[in-house]
Amino acid sequence: MRMYDIIMKKRDGYALSTEEINYFIENYTNGLIPDYQVSALLMAIYLNKMDKRETLDLTKAIINSGDTFDLSKINGIKVDKHSTGGVGDTTTLILGPMVAACGVPFVKMSGRGLGHTGGTLDKLESIKGFRVELDNEEFEEIANTINISICSQTGNITPADKKLYALRDVTATVDNISLITASIMSKKLAIESDGIILDVKVGSGAFMKNIDDAVRLAKEMVDIGNLYGRKTVALVTNMDEPLGKAVGNALEIKEAIDTLKGKGPEDLYELTLVLGSKLLYLAEKVDNEIDGRNMLIEAVNSGKAFEKFKELVRYQGGDVSYIENPELLPKAKYVLEVKSNVEGYVKAINAEEVGKCALALGAGRETKESIIDMAAGIVLNKKVDDKVEIGETLAYVHGNDLNKAEEVKNRLLNIFVIGEKNQEAKKLIYDEIN
Amino acid sequence: MRMYDIIMKKRDGYALSTEEINYFIENYTNGLIPDYQVSALLMAIYLNKMDKRETLDLTKAIINSGDTFDLSKINGIKVDKHSTGGVGDTTTLILGPMVAACGVPFVKMSGRGLGHTGGTLDKLESIKGFRVELDNEEFEEIANTINISICSQTGNITPADKKLYALRDVTATVDNISLITASIMSKKLAIESDGIILDVKVGSGAFMKNIDDAVRLAKEMVDIGNLYGRKTVALVTNMDEPLGKAVGNALEIKEAIDTLKGKGPEDLYELTLVLGSKLLYLAEKVDNEIDGRNMLIEAVNSGKAFEKFKELVRYQGGDVSYIENPELLPKAKYVLEVKSNVEGYVKAINAEEVGKCALALGAGRETKESIIDMAAGIVLNKKVDDKVEIGETLAYVHGNDLNKAEEVKNRLLNIFVIGEKNQEAKKLIYDEIN
Repeated sequence: MRMYDIIMKKRDGYALSTEEINYFIENYTNGLIPDYQVSALLMAIYLNKMDKRETLDLTKAIINSGDTFDLSKINGIKVDKHSTGGVGDTTTLILGPMVAACGVPFVKMSGRGLGHTGGTLDKLESIKGFRVELDNEEFEEIANTINISICSQTGNITPADKKLYALRDVTATVDNISLITASIMSKKLAIESDGIILDVKVGSGAFMKNIDDAVRLAKEMVDIGNLYGRKTVALVTNMDEPLGKAVGNALEIKEAIDTLKGKGPEDLYELTLVLGSKLLYLAEKVDNEIDGRNMLIEAVNSGKAFEKFKELVRYQGGDVSYIENPELLPKAKYVLEVKSNVEGYVKAINAEEVGKCALALGAGRETKESIIDMAAGIVLNKKVDDKVEIGETLAYVHGNDLNKAEEVKNRLLNIFVIGEKNQEAKKLIYDEIN
Repeated sequence: MRMYDIIMKKRDGYALSTEEINYFIENYTNGLIPDYQVSALLMAIYLNKMDKRETLDLTKAIINSGDTFDLSKINGIKVDKHSTGGVGDTTTLILGPMVAACGVPFVKMSGRGLGHTGGTLDKLESIKGFRVELDNEEFEEIANTINISICSQTGNITPADKKLYALRDVTATVDNISLITASIMSKKLAIESDGIILDVKVGSGAFMKNIDDAVRLAKEMVDIGNLYGRKTVALVTNMDEPLGKAVGNALEIKEAIDTLKGKGPEDLYELTLVLGSKLLYLAEKVDNEIDGRNMLIEAVNSGKAFEKFKELVRYQGGDVSYIENPELLPKAKYVLEVKSNVEGYVKAINAEEVGKCALALGAGRETKESIIDMAAGIVLNKKVDDKVEIGETLAYVHGNDLNKAEEVKNRLLNIFVIGEKNQEAKKLIYDEIN
């Protein structure tokens, strides 16, 4: 078999065989096929597409390029949840304790933030002492003791994806449904959970900018997950404005605490309930999603969900006093108010721009090596469809560098689009693929 | 400007601007753009095509990536002839002396052979003492004295093409009309002749395998040449069987001598006459091609063309006795006869296969570093449409390695397809683009 012939075949519009896909991924991973041949193939795939069988084969080949993570030593039915990435997406931190409080294991290997999107591990590290680096035994023991554990990925999972993604990123071959699906699903499927819930974000702050594309991607991912033999469902949800109100690490921990106490932003709580009720249903804890929803609300109202979060923090070495008293969390030197100079309704708050503002404040990583300012970030006071009077606060800027905070304050004033009331009220959930 | 955006633009089907094409070629040549980005762009160009303006811009950018070769110190109207490469194509060695004998300068920077196609420089080096490495002054002086000089390319001509071609060769992006045109025409146009005659070969021994594609390529090359401001014409000619009868270096020199004396193979002589009459017309030596043809025939019949060849050999350091007595040329130890074991008509002689047989005998280069056996090669005794009796000789195998010669002898027996007479007689020239 020769890489040249594989490129030519896809160039000419034919489907690649399982063997050809395996050959390409194996030999690219072990360095025998050079980048310049792979980028030519990626462009041919981008333009001539892959069918579902090819996408499944590619996903499998990427999984087989590295280790898989065995969850069989953790008791119960494990359902993994994955978001395609957004701004202010604090769902994992709320969902985990809620479902664990309902008696369903929530074990998650999470990631770090990059660019304008945040990462769950970074947020947790704003809690003094919290350890995300756990070895397998520790991870399993914590999960089996308290039903929840969140740690960073260990082992050599999907090395082919790392190489491929880096190459796609510089050759304009990222946004192809098959390549995205294989990249995301290989990483999810390499972790041997019993089911997967995908939260596919769409809008200004998401990787997918339009709903039709997001629905197509969600369907493809659900198909690939199910064809692989893993129960998979997906939601397509709004990321036109940030989710919830807080964007920034410690600020989002505080928001998670508020939400677990039933006092969080409406959209964030609602999305968590929808994801959670699906999760309880997939984990066979309830017979239908309505029962699941009620169980989750009860876990919040009874205080059990919040207690579960405290347990998680305690078992992973964190200082629980930070959770009991969020005032202890890292705090910014300066908090500036962004005040409206017009009246009307909030028509739009570009989520990517808000994410970039948080990044400018130091809340995120420009590059993988950047050090995060845990205290920095933005708290929205108004969201889309809210009424605004002149002089009312639109948002708060939390920063340790006054110049940067002033700059972000001015940027945010332009990011809030205020005018007549939108004709259609915003939607939180666009579609659901089961 | 960023290479990423250029890739994305072509990926999405848009035409690249002149500035974008210049940026890409300049920065690829100087090493600032990596191969993996260029191969992605090449595949996008392959699949989404380039329009004529882009192809012209690409050709110009490749020319500008290196030196151009100034012919202004050589007197007269200089017309360059270029063949896209075939098997047994001895035309240059015959055409040059013929037109020079008619008083039109024939100056040529020629190439070496690679794979199954031969190279003019290699053939000339089978003449003892012949020097193809000339400096510019020597080249000009010889051309101005005897109207003809053939040397190897000097200087840094189209370095971008060398890098691009090497990359296309391993990424299945060779056979795209725009990329082929820019590659061939940049090399031709970098040598500042007054006109260009292209011999676009088509058939089993050529790079282009079907006539429609060859005609499209020929038209594109003629357009680009003319748009660049150089008078350009093209012939599309038959390379389904080898041209003439000899394939191999010394064997082709002998064939050139025979043809210059009026005793060469009919097809080779005829093609040279057609190319030559166009050349004399482009060089404004004659008012029409018929007059050109008659002038060329007269140059052969009078012996002037042969004398001119001897002059070329003498001025470039070669031993003229080799030309006066071709028996002195390198000779193979073994000459085997391939005899037919059936009777009928020759239906086909796959030229690429014959070329590969010559290569196996040592007449060509497997890689750039291979050393050529000047004596080795094949002489056809029968050509397509010829009648064959049982026991008649189809071809002669000239080799210095008996085992290899025996092997080639057996291969050749299969390469000659003998059967009923072809319904249509073969054509030498398929099309002419002026």
